[in-house]
Amino acid sequence: MSLLVQKFGGTSVADPDRMRAVADYVARCRRRGDQVAMVVSAMGKETDELIHVASQISKQPNGREMDMLVTAGERKAIALMCMALGEFGVPAHSFTGSQAGFNTDGNHQNAKILEIKPFRIRETLESGIVPVIAGSQGVSPEKNVTFLGRGGSDTTAVALAKALGAESCELFTDVSGVFTADPRVVPRARKMSLISFDELLEMTATGCPKPAMRSVEVAHNHNVPLHIRSAFTWEPGTLVVDDTSQLAVENPMEQPIIRAVTHDLSESKITVADVPDKPGISATLFRALAEAGVNVDMIVQNVSERGNTDISFTVPSEDATRAHALVADEIIGRIGGHVVPLDPNIGKVSVIGAGMKSNPGVAALMFETMADNGINIEMISTSAIRISCVVDAERAEEAVQLLHTAYGLDS
Amino acid sequence: MSLLVQKFGGTSVADPDRMRAVADYVARCRRRGDQVAMVVSAMGKETDELIHVASQISKQPNGREMDMLVTAGERKAIALMCMALGEFGVPAHSFTGSQAGFNTDGNHQNAKILEIKPFRIRETLESGIVPVIAGSQGVSPEKNVTFLGRGGSDTTAVALAKALGAESCELFTDVSGVFTADPRVVPRARKMSLISFDELLEMTATGCPKPAMRSVEVAHNHNVPLHIRSAFTWEPGTLVVDDTSQLAVENPMEQPIIRAVTHDLSESKITVADVPDKPGISATLFRALAEAGVNVDMIVQNVSERGNTDISFTVPSEDATRAHALVADEIIGRIGGHVVPLDPNIGKVSVIGAGMKSNPGVAALMFETMADNGINIEMISTSAIRISCVVDAERAEEAVQLLHTAYGLDS
Repeated sequence: MSLLVQKFGGTSVADPDRMRAVADYVARCRRRGDQVAMVVSAMGKETDELIHVASQISKQPNGREMDMLVTAGERKAIALMCMALGEFGVPAHSFTGSQAGFNTDGNHQNAKILEIKPFRIRETLESGIVPVIAGSQGVSPEKNVTFLGRGGSDTTAVALAKALGAESCELFTDVSGVFTADPRVVPRARKMSLISFDELLEMTATGCPKPAMRSVEVAHNHNVPLHIRSAFTWEPGTLVVDDTSQLAVENPMEQPIIRAVTHDLSESKITVADVPDKPGISATLFRALAEAGVNVDMIVQNVSERGNTDISFTVPSEDATRAHALVADEIIGRIGGHVVPLDPNIGKVSVIGAGMKSNPGVAALMFETMADNGINIEMISTSAIRISCVVDAERAEEAVQLLHTAYGLDS
Repeated sequence: MSLLVQKFGGTSVADPDRMRAVADYVARCRRRGDQVAMVVSAMGKETDELIHVASQISKQPNGREMDMLVTAGERKAIALMCMALGEFGVPAHSFTGSQAGFNTDGNHQNAKILEIKPFRIRETLESGIVPVIAGSQGVSPEKNVTFLGRGGSDTTAVALAKALGAESCELFTDVSGVFTADPRVVPRARKMSLISFDELLEMTATGCPKPAMRSVEVAHNHNVPLHIRSAFTWEPGTLVVDDTSQLAVENPMEQPIIRAVTHDLSESKITVADVPDKPGISATLFRALAEAGVNVDMIVQNVSERGNTDISFTVPSEDATRAHALVADEIIGRIGGHVVPLDPNIGKVSVIGAGMKSNPGVAALMFETMADNGINIEMISTSAIRISCVVDAERAEEAVQLLHTAYGLDS
């Protein structure tokens, strides 16, 4: 008998038919002898709709009230899911984040989990009842309802799996696993049966949309076995493993192993140019952005001549106008230099795989593939297992296709 | 009974007394019932001395002959080690890389392992004899002797452990393990009893000198359990594990875990400024450098204004003058722009740990710590588990000390 945490995303429970399909599946798992704890997201686009309603009432809604509002979406979903399970003969109890023991910090809209005390969940499981937990929510030290943010249900599931000591955390979604590239962009992209935590972490940090990057960080830090799979086809998906040797069976001893090509069109580029090259520039810039709640992704700085420096960074496009204005109107006055007009038309294309650092040809092949096809590179950043290039958004998907072929991932 | 691959570096076998100390230790392991296969480096500074002699005879010695010359160092060491083992009652046979079945490519001075056929090593072990294998060598498809390059003995040991299916690969060296920072720079640096492969990979890619980065790549890709330990104190060292949950026991669910601060003073910075912002620049630049055998480390490019771009990158200082000349005399004519004078006085300082991507404060704290102490940042590059800053070489060690304190690693 295995204890499984199964998380179902919004599209998996979008309507009553989907709810019944999920309940049927969980009933089958139970009949096979598995214990199941479920984590459920809000149905379909419900979270978006709640946020939209709030925006019609208030331009800058209070964080505490937004969390109270938005978490109603999952509350509805867990109750309905328990009813659906009942129809399939499965006893089930719903739990809000607070009831399930999710203690978070008080950072509304983007709360972080501090600790989980899942004693009610354990009791429920021991009684033979399926606990159905609302995703992405918790309770702050001040006893306020908190929301973990978008994609937070994945994090809820991973953290719960860790706290319960579950055999596996299964993230059910509308894709059948993790692919070597986005299959919509690269028809020959292949589903990976296995991937390592650190490779998946770099993939989700560079545009692979599912699972949520934050949940991969938690799974990686706490070694929670993940299974990314489909709630539509129910076929086996992608297992995320620590044991990378399973990935290397076919590989020669010292060859670089390029695993995937990712891309991200959701970011914009801000460049601060001709800033005086002196201490404190980056600190002032990035502390101010952090305090404004802007999540900066890629940071690239180089000093070309004594006396001035350029700093480029990417931010989510929905924050870009605000971040650019903050830099132009306030920060630039403190650090000098000038702000280049916002560039919203960028795409970040990344190649991920281990062993590339000892093989300089890996980077050169990426740059050549771009060059041979007239794709200009605007930013470059490298890590031990990744090379990222920022290019024109209109060429990004083409770049992904070309790189998928160039690195031999098509076959 | 465990099968252990034990690798002993140059300082561990520097003179007859050290050889005897190592032989004594191996004899004790055998008496405890372990099977041991040894990998031995050239004694002390022998490799340096051989290279120096060659330089007195020829300015550009032939690669094949250099490999033939340099591999004589390990050949001597393995023969002497077998004699020392004999004095302790341990039967031992020496093997060159070729005899041990290390098939490599034909890239002299920096050969890569393609495949290992260790049947003679297996037979030797089965006969109760200790095989003593020369580190860092192999044989090319053309049957020439090849040298894997500096630090190659670590790679030999890891690859052999994989090929033999050894329980553990123990890399014996002159330090007692992997530290949160260089203990010579940070007196309060602590030895880590455990570290994950991906964190160690980023550490060795950013200046942590031992083990050799390339061996960590191979260990990571093939999941070879590593134990970094001292051949002088023989105490337990640092275990490199895949199971990161062992590292996270004390940590709250979603807190970033900063594990170490590394620095690297061995590189120089080259900047190509005001290059026309068009496709092919990076490809031309980095392919030419790769073909000249220059191992480029950090690459940072950002475009500040339409029409021009700056590219900064770091290379090993010993290649810097040559690389800078290559860029200035040849490459710049093909890509335009101009080369900024070589900057040899840089230090790269990096903070490594998982969970930082979801916590923007981690980067801001690094920049603030630098700023508060008047340390100017010249280059920035980020990955999912690392932030690196290039600073003035003279301030780098101070930066490491400050960051070690700022991230709470002192206690």
